[in-house]
Amino acid sequence: MTDTVLSSPTRETVIGFDRPFAIIGERINPTGRKLLAEEMKQGDFSRVETDAVAQVAAGAHMLDVNAGIPLADEPAILAKTVQLVQSLVDVPLSIDSSIVEALEAGLSAYQGKALVNSVTGEDEQMERVLPLVAKHGAAVVAITNDETGISTDPDVRFEVARKIVNRAADHGIPYSDIVVDPLVMPIGAMGTAGQQVFHLVRRLRVELKVNTTCGASNVSFGLPNRPAINGAFLAMAIGAGMTSAITNPLEPEISRSIMAADVLAGHDADCAAWIKAHRQPAAEGEGRRRSNRRRSAG
Amino acid sequence: MTDTVLSSPTRETVIGFDRPFAIIGERINPTGRKLLAEEMKQGDFSRVETDAVAQVAAGAHMLDVNAGIPLADEPAILAKTVQLVQSLVDVPLSIDSSIVEALEAGLSAYQGKALVNSVTGEDEQMERVLPLVAKHGAAVVAITNDETGISTDPDVRFEVARKIVNRAADHGIPYSDIVVDPLVMPIGAMGTAGQQVFHLVRRLRVELKVNTTCGASNVSFGLPNRPAINGAFLAMAIGAGMTSAITNPLEPEISRSIMAADVLAGHDADCAAWIKAHRQPAAEGEGRRRSNRRRSAG
Repeated sequence: MTDTVLSSPTRETVIGFDRPFAIIGERINPTGRKLLAEEMKQGDFSRVETDAVAQVAAGAHMLDVNAGIPLADEPAILAKTVQLVQSLVDVPLSIDSSIVEALEAGLSAYQGKALVNSVTGEDEQMERVLPLVAKHGAAVVAITNDETGISTDPDVRFEVARKIVNRAADHGIPYSDIVVDPLVMPIGAMGTAGQQVFHLVRRLRVELKVNTTCGASNVSFGLPNRPAINGAFLAMAIGAGMTSAITNPLEPEISRSIMAADVLAGHDADCAAWIKAHRQPAAEGEGRRRSNRRRSAG
Repeated sequence: MTDTVLSSPTRETVIGFDRPFAIIGERINPTGRKLLAEEMKQGDFSRVETDAVAQVAAGAHMLDVNAGIPLADEPAILAKTVQLVQSLVDVPLSIDSSIVEALEAGLSAYQGKALVNSVTGEDEQMERVLPLVAKHGAAVVAITNDETGISTDPDVRFEVARKIVNRAADHGIPYSDIVVDPLVMPIGAMGTAGQQVFHLVRRLRVELKVNTTCGASNVSFGLPNRPAINGAFLAMAIGAGMTSAITNPLEPEISRSIMAADVLAGHDADCAAWIKAHRQPAAEGEGRRRSNRRRSAG
């Protein structure tokens, strides 16, 4: 029954075992989006603004914010993006960077309790990121690789997760503030990728009692009709006990699959969000959002 | 690694733990289809013919055949329907009736190894149906209710399944020829219906080592956008280990969800069926069918 509580100045989002699946909007990320990268570097944040508002309207409970632009001042841009997004939408943010200075700048600019994305099981990284998470009273995404890379054995990845949870505890960070990413491989390259994730999510939930997240779209890399694979993957992951994902709520097949899986997992009381979304198709996002809010308060 | 092998004179379908999910086409059933019921009663089987061919073209690995028409000679109509369908398509059939005489007539008309649908845990029913299954060397769907009705406790339903498996063994029917239906309730009436099925499917697979099936569409009864709920349910059920369902392959959202879940469960080697279906959208059914055949031979 673990709850990970994130907040903005005016709103809480709870990632939890018995709650509607938490959608963390993935769009504010210049990686692989050349135009967005160039615009952000030039100080044009119009696309960030559009993406922020659209994702929340489509049902995102949080937004991931990444400013990883080659040869740019990432800490400054990430801090500015965090401030801008917080001025536009009220959902809590996931502050996303592989550069510790950028995480620090983003956290300093953030108002509320953020999700830091991410820390790995590498010793040096843990010793730099975890004190920052503790200092800001944030939660953190734990990625299950370490100095040796990403193991193809999910039970090795489980042990990396355990190591991060234990190390975080040394820094005063409770396991309820760790959201573990089991790492999703492309199913086209590794046929066992799905089974590995479902197995690992169950172990993480039962044995470490932690919430989980993932970059869901990686699973369909290289395949045709990616939204259909992503949608089925998310439904199966929710069935296995996954509690959040960094994904694209603007993709109808993904939103619909998550909502349906919430119904089937018993996380949409009286199917209220599902029925409401279909009564007013234009307000689907609003339906989910209200539902999460109601649960958070309860 | 349990395999349930069904056959027609020219083709085998295997329902099994590590195989593509077996789709049993649900359409040849006059229940709730007034026009079809009236036509079948009058001896007009044109709609049966169309449904048989269309479902196999859409990827059905088996067809369910039901002739439950009030005030009609069900044994005679079922036998005739079985013969007709076998003359049109080569997939094995599920012979579906609650009347033992109709099951007997259907089995007598059938060529190959059929799936008898169904036996419950009621003593009198078991003592009538199981000898028939044994005599014809058929397999049988076991429904997890008994004299006391359908328990809302999935662990009671598990015990009913165990009772049927044990009783079948007394008649010389191996557990590999029992396909258990955990019974799917409408999620709109019982919020735990999904979790119950997933829990029960896992227990049935691990503890009784039996294959499983269900009437999938019942889960969405009364809700809007039923194909989306059914599709997510089937993906989650496959994730939990379910190995077949009686469903409608003509519904694109259902077919697509099952195919995607097969990919993610590791049951579509090299994603070959998925890729093929998207290369030649018109031949989606054929893609699945070849895939199942290849595995069956392996």
